[in-house]
Amino acid sequence: MPTNHLRANGERFWDTIEASAKVGPGIAGGLRRLALSDSDREIRDLFRQWCEAAGCTVTVDQMGSMFARRAGREDLPPVMVGSHLDTQIAGGRYDGIVGVLAGLEIIRTLNDQGITTKRPIEVVNWTNEEGARFQPPMVAAGVFAGVYDLDWGLARPTRDPGPNEGATLGEELQRIGYAGAEQVGGREVDSYFELHIEQGPELDRIGVDVGVVTGGYAVRGMLIRIKGETAHTGPTPMEKRKNALVGAARMIVAADDLGWDYAGSDGKVTAARLTVSPNLAGILSDHAELSLDLRHPDPAKADEMLTELERRIAQAARRSQVEYEVIERWVFGDEYFDPDCIDRVRSAAAELGVSHQDMLSQAGHDAYHMASKYPTAMVFSPCGDGITHNEAENTSLAAQLPAVDVLLNAVVSRAER
Amino acid sequence: MPTNHLRANGERFWDTIEASAKVGPGIAGGLRRLALSDSDREIRDLFRQWCEAAGCTVTVDQMGSMFARRAGREDLPPVMVGSHLDTQIAGGRYDGIVGVLAGLEIIRTLNDQGITTKRPIEVVNWTNEEGARFQPPMVAAGVFAGVYDLDWGLARPTRDPGPNEGATLGEELQRIGYAGAEQVGGREVDSYFELHIEQGPELDRIGVDVGVVTGGYAVRGMLIRIKGETAHTGPTPMEKRKNALVGAARMIVAADDLGWDYAGSDGKVTAARLTVSPNLAGILSDHAELSLDLRHPDPAKADEMLTELERRIAQAARRSQVEYEVIERWVFGDEYFDPDCIDRVRSAAAELGVSHQDMLSQAGHDAYHMASKYPTAMVFSPCGDGITHNEAENTSLAAQLPAVDVLLNAVVSRAER
Repeated sequence: MPTNHLRANGERFWDTIEASAKVGPGIAGGLRRLALSDSDREIRDLFRQWCEAAGCTVTVDQMGSMFARRAGREDLPPVMVGSHLDTQIAGGRYDGIVGVLAGLEIIRTLNDQGITTKRPIEVVNWTNEEGARFQPPMVAAGVFAGVYDLDWGLARPTRDPGPNEGATLGEELQRIGYAGAEQVGGREVDSYFELHIEQGPELDRIGVDVGVVTGGYAVRGMLIRIKGETAHTGPTPMEKRKNALVGAARMIVAADDLGWDYAGSDGKVTAARLTVSPNLAGILSDHAELSLDLRHPDPAKADEMLTELERRIAQAARRSQVEYEVIERWVFGDEYFDPDCIDRVRSAAAELGVSHQDMLSQAGHDAYHMASKYPTAMVFSPCGDGITHNEAENTSLAAQLPAVDVLLNAVVSRAER
Repeated sequence: MPTNHLRANGERFWDTIEASAKVGPGIAGGLRRLALSDSDREIRDLFRQWCEAAGCTVTVDQMGSMFARRAGREDLPPVMVGSHLDTQIAGGRYDGIVGVLAGLEIIRTLNDQGITTKRPIEVVNWTNEEGARFQPPMVAAGVFAGVYDLDWGLARPTRDPGPNEGATLGEELQRIGYAGAEQVGGREVDSYFELHIEQGPELDRIGVDVGVVTGGYAVRGMLIRIKGETAHTGPTPMEKRKNALVGAARMIVAADDLGWDYAGSDGKVTAARLTVSPNLAGILSDHAELSLDLRHPDPAKADEMLTELERRIAQAARRSQVEYEVIERWVFGDEYFDPDCIDRVRSAAAELGVSHQDMLSQAGHDAYHMASKYPTAMVFSPCGDGITHNEAENTSLAAQLPAVDVLLNAVVSRAER
């Protein structure tokens, strides 16, 4: 079996990427294809048609994740390959999408070559990876891997104003016709591979084609509830103020300063979301909710940053005369991928003559959850200037094709195991 | 004519305050009676009934402000007395309300005593003083005094999610039946008097019954639009981040620090309202709008603070790598009330044997706009612990009655002029 040196059909792959980019157009050529929106339904329908036309059997699980199965020579646990087709509110055309459609391209290439692998291959489209409408992100892969309960996953509410505000993930799955019947997870999976744009500037900067992802940056996050006291914005003396907005601002600045303190070793701290109430002219706010997270390539350093962040948050609260409590915490990253799967990615790149380099993922991915239960690896492709979660996300077929070929050969080699 | 030493009927006044407190109940005994809401209509209907029962003629102008006129012996320009019946989102039972209902109590007391003043007296309820639903606050008094155009006032949109979001002030006036026919302002007014709770702790702290308000703190405010860039919260290096939320937070902290720098001379700086978009997990925000204001008893110091605030805002923006522009500015306070009107308040207090002290107002009031065109004065009554714009706003008849009596005698003395 000539399992190595397979080559994908680049033109067909890119045509499919461009067909996807017509569904759910956002601003300035980007996409706004929020999970379980009408445009998500549209791309799901299209993905299903493409997979069925390529001879796959498509099933949908109770979390709405889609699995397009190409049978193997033997009825063994499948090699899975995929990512997500949903986008951020002002998202690009490639984040997640490249990974799913590269999976489809693997199927099509195997069809062209008349190859049937030993193990089945399943191309996956995970529900709600982005978390733009439903928190947390990567929830469906998390339920699949047993990290979250199914009932909890289905009960996630939409968090932001807009159509169907307050509807649950389960209700929105029903609405768009993707509340599948298949049990979530609970079956044997041989391995999971995910190709994703890097979402960082490194590959683009150093001119390397493929990142062999060995694991993830350690991430520690928290949601903080801040309690102040309403009062008139005018006469209330500074020393009597308990303005929740000022409390949140002091925490954000403390967090950002900490990020700069660790920037030299590639640490980062982010304030992504703040809600304040009543948030009106004339009145000091008594309530705020703030999410903060930090990342570092070294889990021990991440823990050190977390300790320091908590110290500075307490200080910011005292300085602002507000009270607070941490009402949610999350930890991810710290995942180190499977040596055999990583090695198949690295070997495929070497054999294809594709320039490559080991790296850690900085963003969260469905692969993190999968790695907690199944042998997993990731392939990174370059991302123009590192810009992502922005409509200006940019890349080209020439930049993506080497990574698609690496994924193809790594997946096929594992499927022959 | 025994115009001095009149005494209001305290029990009746307080019964009316309590009847008002049943309309639009908020949390914990407070009120939530937002301008032009259904409960605002309800209190307006009640106020009209009370005034008509007291023999007044009630007219409504095109901004919805209500004028209950008690005829004088001569058809001269009236002495106006009033405030507002709308509240903050989590407001109290007294802010504004005490001033309008003290005006009504003046009419009732004059009826009891069979006194007809030389000039007419008009009790006013100004539309949307608080600005909780429509910005700016004090908009109807502003139109009355010619500070704003009528069309602009009617076109103010609701700013916050809720019933009838996006409706204009004019549409909401129509909806509740208070789009009056009378021209706004443009007629002669002898003078304007307003009784208001102090909204600060001073009278309560020093045990003085009445504040003789000689003018207002100087206020300088601005609405800042901050422009960042969306990017992934994870991999984006600190040095590439242009997070609008961090930019806003650094401006808020700079503003709050400035407030503390001037706290010794009773300066204050406030961040009251911040909106951020897209404000989602996973993405750095590219847009924020922040309102800041500062106050100082000395206009020259307020200008000095403003210069320093602008310097620090520019610094905060540079530090956060965001751009910004000031899209709105406002200046108020700097108003010094009319010597004759002030003197009538001071004399009334002295003759009644009520303890009193000159002071400046720190909050904005409808009286500020009126003072720009007509002889004006204000009377402050104590406010328990200085708490206001909070459901815990607290006072008693014993604390309010001296101020009501002072207002009564000052207004009647001016109406005899």
